[in-house]
Amino acid sequence: MPLNTITTQAGVLDSPAKAELADKLTAFHVEYAGVPQNWVHIVFHEYPIGNGVSAGRPSPTAALTLLIRTGRSSEYRREMLRRLWSLVQAATGAPDEEIVLGIQEVPSSQATEMRQIIPEVASS
Amino acid sequence: MPLNTITTQAGVLDSPAKAELADKLTAFHVEYAGVPQNWVHIVFHEYPIGNGVSAGRPSPTAALTLLIRTGRSSEYRREMLRRLWSLVQAATGAPDEEIVLGIQEVPSSQATEMRQIIPEVASS
Amino acid sequence: MPLNTITTQAGVLDSPAKAELADKLTAFHVEYAGVPQNWVHIVFHEYPIGNGVSAGRPSPTAALTLLIRTGRSSEYRREMLRRLWSLVQAATGAPDEEIVLGIQEVPSSQATEMRQIIPEVASS
Repeated sequence: MPLNTITTQAGVLDSPAKAELADKLTAFHVEYAGVPQNWVHIVFHEYPIGNGVSAGRPSPTAALTLLIRTGRSSEYRREMLRRLWSLVQAATGAPDEEIVLGIQEVPSSQATEMRQIIPEVASS
Repeated sequence: MPLNTITTQAGVLDSPAKAELADKLTAFHVEYAGVPQNWVHIVFHEYPIGNGVSAGRPSPTAALTLLIRTGRSSEYRREMLRRLWSLVQAATGAPDEEIVLGIQEVPSSQATEMRQIIPEVASS
Repeated sequence: MPLNTITTQAGVLDSPAKAELADKLTAFHVEYAGVPQNWVHIVFHEYPIGNGVSAGRPSPTAALTLLIRTGRSSEYRREMLRRLWSLVQAATGAPDEEIVLGIQEVPSSQATEMRQIIPEVASS
């Protein structure tokens, strides 16, 4: 936790682009959320052309869903979204209407890291 | 947002079936939720035979998970589920025991559309 | 519901390993959560080498996200996480730092089983 799931159309991110985005996302969570680097997990899901739709049209829709612990302030999350948006857009080159981001929160009692129930957020 | 993730066994939905389901889902959200069409995102995830299990048996399990803003009433969400169920079942032909739907809500401060933090639900 | 989504690098779980993990997960939910067997859904998502990252390094990250109804106690969920962790680790052989688990809750009005809105949790 955070678990970053990045969903893109196959071909949008090549291997170097994935590595660069993963580096930036990992660094972002370590710096912004203050979590240990080994808590940051990223999975890229890629789908074939035709499996993404935005605004009713086939599109290389890019989605980032992020699973974090509850306890952060609204302002914290808003700024997080702004920065994640920039990272995803820089990596994918997608126009605004083909990007969607969502942060999903789970109570610390519902998430496990390193075999331990994760602690609550100390401060936000 | 809404982000519709449709998970099916490969081969259950061919390209025309995906396009038709995407059209119907998009129209549904625009009409029922009153969101702009360019907020509606859909991704189809397909898995190979053997990767779906329902009731302990290998099955072409069909799942729709939907990420929406918080703020809708229970009755609104119940009716939404009923209508989504019909759309998914019509498209996949899956029997009741191989379909699962879940609506996940995120506060508006945790979701971004068109580079903007999305506004709160005006009414439900 | 529960919907178990298991994300692993391709090759980590072969067919017998998936079948065994699916059997154990299904039995776990029936016994621990007391749900009917035909409510338990499992989907395996597999990604190619290079698409998983933990601690900033390419890794065969293994994730289990679980969608359940709200209403269970913290202690119930903690014990659930401990047992799921053991099942996932036994199946994948992944070290602690490459496993992440999250339980996501949805109100019963937001989930459908067998074409019915699912009932609330009777007790936890």
